[in-house]
Amino acid sequence: MSNVNNPKAYLAEFIGSVLLVAAIVGSGTMGTQMSRDSGVGLTLNAISVVAMLWILITTLGPISGAHFNPVVSLVMLYRKAISTTDALIYIILQILGAIIGATLANLMFEKTLFALSEVDRTGYGQVTGEIVATAGLVFLIILLINSDRSKKIPTAVAAWIGSAFFFTSSTALANPAVTIGRIFTDSVVGIAPNGVLPFLAAQLVGGAIGLALATVLKGK
Amino acid sequence: MSNVNNPKAYLAEFIGSVLLVAAIVGSGTMGTQMSRDSGVGLTLNAISVVAMLWILITTLGPISGAHFNPVVSLVMLYRKAISTTDALIYIILQILGAIIGATLANLMFEKTLFALSEVDRTGYGQVTGEIVATAGLVFLIILLINSDRSKKIPTAVAAWIGSAFFFTSSTALANPAVTIGRIFTDSVVGIAPNGVLPFLAAQLVGGAIGLALATVLKGK
Amino acid sequence: MSNVNNPKAYLAEFIGSVLLVAAIVGSGTMGTQMSRDSGVGLTLNAISVVAMLWILITTLGPISGAHFNPVVSLVMLYRKAISTTDALIYIILQILGAIIGATLANLMFEKTLFALSEVDRTGYGQVTGEIVATAGLVFLIILLINSDRSKKIPTAVAAWIGSAFFFTSSTALANPAVTIGRIFTDSVVGIAPNGVLPFLAAQLVGGAIGLALATVLKGK
Amino acid sequence: MSNVNNPKAYLAEFIGSVLLVAAIVGSGTMGTQMSRDSGVGLTLNAISVVAMLWILITTLGPISGAHFNPVVSLVMLYRKAISTTDALIYIILQILGAIIGATLANLMFEKTLFALSEVDRTGYGQVTGEIVATAGLVFLIILLINSDRSKKIPTAVAAWIGSAFFFTSSTALANPAVTIGRIFTDSVVGIAPNGVLPFLAAQLVGGAIGLALATVLKGK
Repeated sequence: MSNVNNPKAYLAEFIGSVLLVAAIVGSGTMGTQMSRDSGVGLTLNAISVVAMLWILITTLGPISGAHFNPVVSLVMLYRKAISTTDALIYIILQILGAIIGATLANLMFEKTLFALSEVDRTGYGQVTGEIVATAGLVFLIILLINSDRSKKIPTAVAAWIGSAFFFTSSTALANPAVTIGRIFTDSVVGIAPNGVLPFLAAQLVGGAIGLALATVLKGK
Repeated sequence: MSNVNNPKAYLAEFIGSVLLVAAIVGSGTMGTQMSRDSGVGLTLNAISVVAMLWILITTLGPISGAHFNPVVSLVMLYRKAISTTDALIYIILQILGAIIGATLANLMFEKTLFALSEVDRTGYGQVTGEIVATAGLVFLIILLINSDRSKKIPTAVAAWIGSAFFFTSSTALANPAVTIGRIFTDSVVGIAPNGVLPFLAAQLVGGAIGLALATVLKGK
Repeated sequence: MSNVNNPKAYLAEFIGSVLLVAAIVGSGTMGTQMSRDSGVGLTLNAISVVAMLWILITTLGPISGAHFNPVVSLVMLYRKAISTTDALIYIILQILGAIIGATLANLMFEKTLFALSEVDRTGYGQVTGEIVATAGLVFLIILLINSDRSKKIPTAVAAWIGSAFFFTSSTALANPAVTIGRIFTDSVVGIAPNGVLPFLAAQLVGGAIGLALATVLKGK
Repeated sequence: MSNVNNPKAYLAEFIGSVLLVAAIVGSGTMGTQMSRDSGVGLTLNAISVVAMLWILITTLGPISGAHFNPVVSLVMLYRKAISTTDALIYIILQILGAIIGATLANLMFEKTLFALSEVDRTGYGQVTGEIVATAGLVFLIILLINSDRSKKIPTAVAAWIGSAFFFTSSTALANPAVTIGRIFTDSVVGIAPNGVLPFLAAQLVGGAIGLALATVLKGK
């Protein structure tokens, strides 16, 4: 997760964000099509996303740091691991990639390319879920970096999202770019526009909490 | 799992216990909400907990030893790996964290924060299940420590609980703090107060059996 | 994945292709027999195939390079990692093995040994799915080879197929030999002959895209 | 998997066989109790057994070689990795452990301790399934030993059984001791006595095929 300033890192962030959201929206759609049981659908969805996260962080990590998440980029900016310019470009490409990823999934399932989700995701419960999901994500990334065990990040991030998928009431979006991308799908994993701002706020708050907790636990 | 006497270790035990029980209760609640099939619900629950255990032991292990379980702390005390004071503080924080974790899950799912479970968990079958689940847990931890392979503990503990979730009749609580935390949830993973003492006794007996078996198998 | 020209490599490619398609067709059949929910069936199917891929690439990789896939062999030919003769022999044995694998699964489930599938797999959505599935497969293999991390290929390929199983509309055949083998089964994982050529074309296009993207991302 | 002749190895084989069959029978029973869908039940069953195999081979491997399977012990005897006496003692303890394991599961679920299974497992399909399942098991173990990669055996064996659980029509017992142990349970994973001898014969034939194939592929 070193400083970057090159087109390959930007391309990696873009491709990773496309594939991440394609996996989320595609497997969400598959779950609804294949199963009448939402629990089974959620399981398909989680497996697909967890495996994808592991792959993307493993393969693209050495190229861009494998953020794919504005909260992670902001934390890396705060830690001076990337420059302000790079953080900005990363975040723009993450959001753009997320939207394209939703579109790609819609294309694969022969659905309207840019639908607007009507899935209501509001309430203090889901907002709390996003705070917990994002706090834990940042917490474990920073703990592992601080203890020189970055090699464990791909598995740890995948495992965290896999766990949080099921134990947070919001199914752990934990990512502003993914949240924005998920506006544009007429499927079970979508999020109606009215729920987006509270989710983004919760993710930022969660990121700050995770960073603070990890910093408190830092060894000398 | 070295001797400790510092606030960071205490905080790590507390945070780990909160997140562990939040995962148990949260994903248990999610399973009931999403699926009409208890087998699917149990699977979601197991995946979430197994992933969480791996993460917590991996990230917090170097800080506190990642016990999150009074039986493990007592075994470590017996082996003189921690002091009596630390064992006591650990156990108190584990129980406190477990209760807070149940509350956090209740909050995320917009349920009563401190409900009292009415799930009946009694009978010689489930008590035997807890003996087996806890014996195996301690058995493998001590075997791995004794053969200088502590690095395999995160995966082995996660795999054991993942296996025992399904093959023990009690779904493998195997942890007195978790058992106490699970009193305070009105969900499928709760335990009514009348079942708690037999479970705690079974867990202590199981821990002793696991320790004895691992000691017998110890190489010269 | 070094140059080969020996009967052991050929035998390894054949055995691997047999077992891969036996797993696909066998677990597909098992899923239909055991569950009334297609989502559950798809999950059994995916678990079986993902585990098999990991095993085959891990155990046979040092012997043949563990292609089991004409697209991979063509990419390796393009990269001059194998000779034209070897690529040709590999591809013939992969296709032959895939057909035998389907037969073996049919035998295990006491079904007609050489049935002709009637499962319709057509439409631009599934063709797009195959492009994405194969592009990603080649992309990650080449990225890992280019960054000297071939040891991660077994897990990465297994994880990719596990993810793509659920998020691509075609359930990620991503392999011309497997596609041909799956013609010969009267089960849910079959493919009727009319869908085969578009799938093969999509897989070749996908392979080219994956190779191009990985090449662009290559470090100096 | 070196030569042994000590009580600790015997105890490890016994404990491992007890826990392996307890996991098989316990999770099989749990699956039936929790789900109305046999596919879900089979999934619980597979997860529990796969995780248990990984744990047992990882933790007990250095002590006894972690056979838990008469076919594996016979193969090791053939390869002169263990003595005839040890092979005999191992096999007796494996069978005894398997029976006790079934009993332990029956106890945990408050069922008749020694029931006689009435589950019919006959027909050329399931017998072929056992040949394939056992052949693959021995094949990969010997391939990994022959290429000095024994450290991958725990994951490879677990993955193989996880795959074969779903793609072989017999659900991959692949183990004579486990087959005998499974006679004594009144649950879905039982096997009625009339099916046992053909299964044992198939497992021996499969073991021989796996050994032969791995030997052919052996490098110079």
